[in-house]
Amino acid sequence: MENSKVLIVMGSRSDLPAMEGCMKQLDEFKIGYTVRILSAHRTPEAVIELSENARKSGYEVIIAAAGGAAHLAGVLASSTILPVIGIPIQTSALGGMDSLLSTVQMPGGVPVATVAIGKAGPKNAAILAAQIMALQDPKLADTLTAFKKAQAKAVLDDSYLN
Amino acid sequence: MENSKVLIVMGSRSDLPAMEGCMKQLDEFKIGYTVRILSAHRTPEAVIELSENARKSGYEVIIAAAGGAAHLAGVLASSTILPVIGIPIQTSALGGMDSLLSTVQMPGGVPVATVAIGKAGPKNAAILAAQIMALQDPKLADTLTAFKKAQAKAVLDDSYLN
Amino acid sequence: MENSKVLIVMGSRSDLPAMEGCMKQLDEFKIGYTVRILSAHRTPEAVIELSENARKSGYEVIIAAAGGAAHLAGVLASSTILPVIGIPIQTSALGGMDSLLSTVQMPGGVPVATVAIGKAGPKNAAILAAQIMALQDPKLADTLTAFKKAQAKAVLDDSYLN
Amino acid sequence: MENSKVLIVMGSRSDLPAMEGCMKQLDEFKIGYTVRILSAHRTPEAVIELSENARKSGYEVIIAAAGGAAHLAGVLASSTILPVIGIPIQTSALGGMDSLLSTVQMPGGVPVATVAIGKAGPKNAAILAAQIMALQDPKLADTLTAFKKAQAKAVLDDSYLN
Amino acid sequence: MENSKVLIVMGSRSDLPAMEGCMKQLDEFKIGYTVRILSAHRTPEAVIELSENARKSGYEVIIAAAGGAAHLAGVLASSTILPVIGIPIQTSALGGMDSLLSTVQMPGGVPVATVAIGKAGPKNAAILAAQIMALQDPKLADTLTAFKKAQAKAVLDDSYLN
Amino acid sequence: MENSKVLIVMGSRSDLPAMEGCMKQLDEFKIGYTVRILSAHRTPEAVIELSENARKSGYEVIIAAAGGAAHLAGVLASSTILPVIGIPIQTSALGGMDSLLSTVQMPGGVPVATVAIGKAGPKNAAILAAQIMALQDPKLADTLTAFKKAQAKAVLDDSYLN
Amino acid sequence: MENSKVLIVMGSRSDLPAMEGCMKQLDEFKIGYTVRILSAHRTPEAVIELSENARKSGYEVIIAAAGGAAHLAGVLASSTILPVIGIPIQTSALGGMDSLLSTVQMPGGVPVATVAIGKAGPKNAAILAAQIMALQDPKLADTLTAFKKAQAKAVLDDSYLN
Amino acid sequence: MENSKVLIVMGSRSDLPAMEGCMKQLDEFKIGYTVRILSAHRTPEAVIELSENARKSGYEVIIAAAGGAAHLAGVLASSTILPVIGIPIQTSALGGMDSLLSTVQMPGGVPVATVAIGKAGPKNAAILAAQIMALQDPKLADTLTAFKKAQAKAVLDDSYLN
Repeated sequence: MENSKVLIVMGSRSDLPAMEGCMKQLDEFKIGYTVRILSAHRTPEAVIELSENARKSGYEVIIAAAGGAAHLAGVLASSTILPVIGIPIQTSALGGMDSLLSTVQMPGGVPVATVAIGKAGPKNAAILAAQIMALQDPKLADTLTAFKKAQAKAVLDDSYLN
Repeated sequence: MENSKVLIVMGSRSDLPAMEGCMKQLDEFKIGYTVRILSAHRTPEAVIELSENARKSGYEVIIAAAGGAAHLAGVLASSTILPVIGIPIQTSALGGMDSLLSTVQMPGGVPVATVAIGKAGPKNAAILAAQIMALQDPKLADTLTAFKKAQAKAVLDDSYLN
Repeated sequence: MENSKVLIVMGSRSDLPAMEGCMKQLDEFKIGYTVRILSAHRTPEAVIELSENARKSGYEVIIAAAGGAAHLAGVLASSTILPVIGIPIQTSALGGMDSLLSTVQMPGGVPVATVAIGKAGPKNAAILAAQIMALQDPKLADTLTAFKKAQAKAVLDDSYLN
Repeated sequence: MENSKVLIVMGSRSDLPAMEGCMKQLDEFKIGYTVRILSAHRTPEAVIELSENARKSGYEVIIAAAGGAAHLAGVLASSTILPVIGIPIQTSALGGMDSLLSTVQMPGGVPVATVAIGKAGPKNAAILAAQIMALQDPKLADTLTAFKKAQAKAVLDDSYLN
Repeated sequence: MENSKVLIVMGSRSDLPAMEGCMKQLDEFKIGYTVRILSAHRTPEAVIELSENARKSGYEVIIAAAGGAAHLAGVLASSTILPVIGIPIQTSALGGMDSLLSTVQMPGGVPVATVAIGKAGPKNAAILAAQIMALQDPKLADTLTAFKKAQAKAVLDDSYLN
Repeated sequence: MENSKVLIVMGSRSDLPAMEGCMKQLDEFKIGYTVRILSAHRTPEAVIELSENARKSGYEVIIAAAGGAAHLAGVLASSTILPVIGIPIQTSALGGMDSLLSTVQMPGGVPVATVAIGKAGPKNAAILAAQIMALQDPKLADTLTAFKKAQAKAVLDDSYLN
Repeated sequence: MENSKVLIVMGSRSDLPAMEGCMKQLDEFKIGYTVRILSAHRTPEAVIELSENARKSGYEVIIAAAGGAAHLAGVLASSTILPVIGIPIQTSALGGMDSLLSTVQMPGGVPVATVAIGKAGPKNAAILAAQIMALQDPKLADTLTAFKKAQAKAVLDDSYLN
Repeated sequence: MENSKVLIVMGSRSDLPAMEGCMKQLDEFKIGYTVRILSAHRTPEAVIELSENARKSGYEVIIAAAGGAAHLAGVLASSTILPVIGIPIQTSALGGMDSLLSTVQMPGGVPVATVAIGKAGPKNAAILAAQIMALQDPKLADTLTAFKKAQAKAVLDDSYLN
């Protein structure tokens, strides 16, 4: 996609439904993004190459979603100085505790900005990406401020039970 | 501190030793920062006020460290559009699993960029903050690129056992 | 609601079905209550304001229900000297372990009286609120004593398999 | 102790050091208390008898501390309409996760107001007891309000690193 | 039931389906049993009385099944010198980890012989009861020996895939 | 040992200190026992042979202690109709959660009577063995009754703080 | 099966559906295998005998799948010098955490090569077996190399969202 | 090292003490090995290059040890058809549960043969490597058979307490 600022990588096509909240939120913020489905374990070199070139390709943030021994965000983070946001995908056996620990417990030197397991994670990854990009984009900052206010207003408007 | 770009908030003075890796890394990157010790539970309004004013005070990233029912990062994130990085402090009873889940499992709309429990987390929070700020600071981007190379070189130079 | 003595706050309208056991039990005890749906993260100031005014509004106990990084009870507890009861809502990824630890592991100085994850929690929050208020309400104490006896009698009457 | 309003029960004399924060906080609030060391498993009838008589003995709140399969708070709660606060004692094998789940996961009908594992729990049990009793004791309410302010002030006074 | 040697106590009528494997296995071994549904928390004195009288009523083994903060087996074990077998019932929030830890982590002096969470537990409780009673019942010992052989034979007969 | 009624098997000589509470308690009850150090994994046939012969060697109860993937109790239980008590030894990495689950989660048909991780487990294994043997030994039953009374008395005598 | 090189043992016929991915993968690699359904606990001697004879029967790798207190792989590993691969079967109560810890936490001297809980485990057991056998089978090594390439190609071909 | 058949890779020089049991065991089996200290995150390309060349360099088995978000074994496994053995290093915060899940929960297509957390893991990795290589090395098979016998004999010789 032209003008893509966010690179979304997911470990498997089966992660797509879980990731829709992420893409929908970026659309709402009018932030361009590219989606790639790549596996840290089946195509490690493609992942590293993608990551090495991400910055000069104009991307500003990378979002990576994976489950189980979720190395995707970590492998991407190893080869770029762009901020990498990791989404731990919920798993049927361990609920996503495996995905969470594999994503967040990174060693010193290579951070992954980890968000929540489950439905909130993909949406929040998009918002976090926007917050990062808004530092140099006053219009996006205004969008985020408006989003935050609207979100609070929606809660307040619906705050009374009857 | 003048020219502070990063606002570090920790829940208790007892978190200071754990947080030294964070400040040291920011120093190494020559990134200005301010440290505040505030409690989401004992001084909620001061935390919210700090967060609400952080952006206009010139901060670009907030780093929050807390343990147990670690709400500090979440409360800061509730009142700003700046990216908030959360560090789950290791705890004696549950190892920091409580801190991690309280920090990372944020609801949709209010992300916290969570890093690792333990020694790696504070250092990585500093690096992640630098990666975020480097998007608009080419010199910092160069510093990070050099840091990454030096880090790899150090590993490679010391890679053989004998 | 006039004569509301209990303030129930839940993090999301989706928590309502889980919370019905709480309201039903308060109804059974003829205890007036108010329900508010507010988010610690989306509307922190409204939560704090509500909490700060709760005592002078005549409330005696606050019940807060939230899931995931469940900060709602903690944020309410930060701004009042009323007893705050926290209900950890069950979550799909981690079963509610995240909600439980975020609610119960409060730092020294700001207690949250935590009850069970799952169906028992909301009902028990109502009973605990009644137990607290019964200290100064002999009629409610009698109601509770009768409730306890009836509950035991129901078990004993149904105690034999055949 | 004459004028005891709080009944503290702990499962073992070895829990005493962990419980000092509780007694110290009650002392600070000038709240009278009685300490009993009784075991839900070794002396069940004494525990039940104590609980059955607690209300007419003038107690207003029961605080129970135990570790492992921590049934003490639950057994006390089974035989009284007084609010029972449960403190899960940290354990060497499982960190206190066993104590926490045994204390908090009570069935519908018999609540235990559970506080944190570790150092914060005993102190918070005392504060929670005070909050409960303050509903009918305006002087204690003033003490709690002052305590909360002092606590916040102490944080704020010590909030800057240098 | 006349000639009951095993006393089965469960915390709730809703545990009955899970417990059928237990009763069926005792039937198969022609071991008489009595089933009582009693709650450690709602009817503590009835539970203790039942336990205190169990031995002189002719019972030889007690089997107790409960979920969550599963104190039933522990409370029964507190008031008898009969062996008490505890079955941790699976729970929807935490899978039965709460039931398991509440049942097995008993303090020194009051053992509970804990079996598996899930389907295997109730059946194995019956077999364990039989193993205990077979020490003084040579005919039951023969039944158990035959059961073990038949069980092995069934596995071996069905051991080849095709 | 002549007149041994209890067969104690432990997976490693390093489990001996943890097991002293077991042997001491059996000594106190004047119950004869034999101690064998055998590994389910290093000497499986010796374990099975020991188990197969245990009953005709006059043993009435088997106690097995092991850590990690603790198969010892399960392997012993596979080859005897004697009741087998399993003690999960605390481990440095996972606190003994691995030992507990490997011991207690036995499949239908082969029960292991599991006791607590940690210090209480070995002592309780001895008491449980005594409870089982007391069914046919009135003198041992009297000893257990006296033990239970003395234990309660010790708690009650030491029940007041000052 | 003639020319069987891999011996697959599973603890229960109910594990068959979960194990289909294993057999299908071996079929794809044209590796002969035998399937046996045997229980470490119900037929320990048959398991040990099978293991003792596995090498001279021409097997090169053993794959064992079991759930709960999953001792099957460990018991097989105890009696052979063939590499034993363990598959922890997902369980309804604990998700397979019990199976995993029972399989992987083997004591020094008796390794089990453990693969993932869930769908990936059985497939990966087959691939791992093939990797082991390929060390002495250049044709199989070529098959594996081709498999790896095809797998990567499939990911890359399907890597773009639209 | 000339004639190296095993390639040992560890994530950090600090893992060396934990890994000594591995090297010692290989020495005892007279199996040549090379040790490299490389980080999946700091030097991903060096790790991949090492893995891609491992087979043609004459290695037959790769052993990888790492802690936390332990991706090292997975990244090595992504680029070779050699069997890769993963050792989860114990961690101070979570005991190694993070290392274990990051190592063992690999997706379909890329197995890692995972051994135990803690002291047993490194030793067992060496034995597993030997078992794999013994398939084509009758002398090593004899060594392993003798090792197994000696190990059993050592247990049996030391099996009686007195």
